[in-house]
Amino acid sequence: MAEATAEVQGRVRDSFERQGLMHHLGARIEEIAPGRVRIVLPNRPEVTQQHGYFHAGATSAIADSAGGYAAYTLFPEDSSVLTVEYKINLLAPAEGDHLEAVGTVLKSGRTLTVCSLEVFGVRGAERSLVASGQQTLIRVDKRPER
Amino acid sequence: MAEATAEVQGRVRDSFERQGLMHHLGARIEEIAPGRVRIVLPNRPEVTQQHGYFHAGATSAIADSAGGYAAYTLFPEDSSVLTVEYKINLLAPAEGDHLEAVGTVLKSGRTLTVCSLEVFGVRGAERSLVASGQQTLIRVDKRPER
Amino acid sequence: MAEATAEVQGRVRDSFERQGLMHHLGARIEEIAPGRVRIVLPNRPEVTQQHGYFHAGATSAIADSAGGYAAYTLFPEDSSVLTVEYKINLLAPAEGDHLEAVGTVLKSGRTLTVCSLEVFGVRGAERSLVASGQQTLIRVDKRPER
Amino acid sequence: MAEATAEVQGRVRDSFERQGLMHHLGARIEEIAPGRVRIVLPNRPEVTQQHGYFHAGATSAIADSAGGYAAYTLFPEDSSVLTVEYKINLLAPAEGDHLEAVGTVLKSGRTLTVCSLEVFGVRGAERSLVASGQQTLIRVDKRPER
Repeated sequence: MAEATAEVQGRVRDSFERQGLMHHLGARIEEIAPGRVRIVLPNRPEVTQQHGYFHAGATSAIADSAGGYAAYTLFPEDSSVLTVEYKINLLAPAEGDHLEAVGTVLKSGRTLTVCSLEVFGVRGAERSLVASGQQTLIRVDKRPER
Repeated sequence: MAEATAEVQGRVRDSFERQGLMHHLGARIEEIAPGRVRIVLPNRPEVTQQHGYFHAGATSAIADSAGGYAAYTLFPEDSSVLTVEYKINLLAPAEGDHLEAVGTVLKSGRTLTVCSLEVFGVRGAERSLVASGQQTLIRVDKRPER
Repeated sequence: MAEATAEVQGRVRDSFERQGLMHHLGARIEEIAPGRVRIVLPNRPEVTQQHGYFHAGATSAIADSAGGYAAYTLFPEDSSVLTVEYKINLLAPAEGDHLEAVGTVLKSGRTLTVCSLEVFGVRGAERSLVASGQQTLIRVDKRPER
Repeated sequence: MAEATAEVQGRVRDSFERQGLMHHLGARIEEIAPGRVRIVLPNRPEVTQQHGYFHAGATSAIADSAGGYAAYTLFPEDSSVLTVEYKINLLAPAEGDHLEAVGTVLKSGRTLTVCSLEVFGVRGAERSLVASGQQTLIRVDKRPER
């Protein structure tokens, strides 16, 4: 898939850098294509649950952000995106050197966008699906950033 | 609602303390009752999204943990809990001095448990519902902790 | 809870009567209050699955309609309602003389409304929760009916 | 994708024929492959909502059945399948000569199976996605049929 335009890449990265949570978790954005965004989260104790796997909350957080930015790549410049809701299945213990969340726009409407969410556990060359979900987002007129 | 027994309180707190993510986010467990757990997340830049509100991922993470531990309070001692899936609606921008997530068991079965999830934004005496969801969990035989 | 106004009751009933599926299943609307609607589905072979219980599809259909009309009671006269999405847990085999679905508005916004969905199996004086869910709806400008 | 074995095809069809609701709606099973089932629902007034489109409840009912049978194709002979929960987004008004629901197994576990659900509106050679969802199912020891 082609890369998004420089304008889109710029505002996605600007927004991502303002997400305190993504920075705090250590997540980074890896790919910004039209309707598709990929976010990576390295494994470290700060993102685990009680058994040492990635916490479902961390898995979900990067999935939610990947879907949100995937929707955002298709929005006009003067708009903003909010998650309405999402559902996620944790299919397997989330382990690996890092997680990779992929958000892909399934349906892009004037007001609402629906994305599919996938999260993979990656260890070396192995990559296995650990979570799968679906998300609804709403486009809103941009309010002044705080 | 009555407090859970000391045994239950003990193993919920032990497990919670092993969740690197909850510690890293600054969340703390506030109430452990049979079938109901409350988790609080103070507001700070590390848990925000691009507009300065709590990130949906942080909101979801404490909701998921609250539901998971609510289920766990009703499990026998030699068992463990895993989130199968959850769905959450972000009803309003999540703001306030802190968030409060409440997980409540709706149906407790031999294998599966279903919880309702609520997250409130709290500022002083004001408390408003910012997210609502539903979660499915599975009880598994306890494996040795890593 | 108080009954809805005659205007609201009228347009909810008009719309319900145009739902070929509700008629075909044998469902009837039992209560129309502001933000809350109750639909009843009698037990008969036409609404069952392979084990003789109510089919999840029938359970969901009346839950979806109950939530949709609950939202609709709070909309202005010149508007219409569409289901964006819903999630439902089938908590127990759905049995009884009839099912009773209750849709309740959890959050009513300008564009989106979120409802909680409950379905009960009723046999005589017994009433047990068989399904629970959450639904997102969108308000749209009324188009001419077909 | 290859057809399922005769044994699997036989027990899926036997079960489907016992689903009073599928018969009542006029749905028929069109394809039974390992981990994938397709169900078709012709358009007629009995399956519509108030605007003349397919009712979300009808759309969901065939999606739920398609996913359930997709899971069932991978189960051993002496087992049965129950829907734990599902989430579905209604992406566009569901119209066409018929709907086609496709359930595909995403993850098959010992106890739980997760399916993706897609529903298409088909008119002549045109086929467009009208709903998309995700479903969790549980395998249970077969009880005697009633």
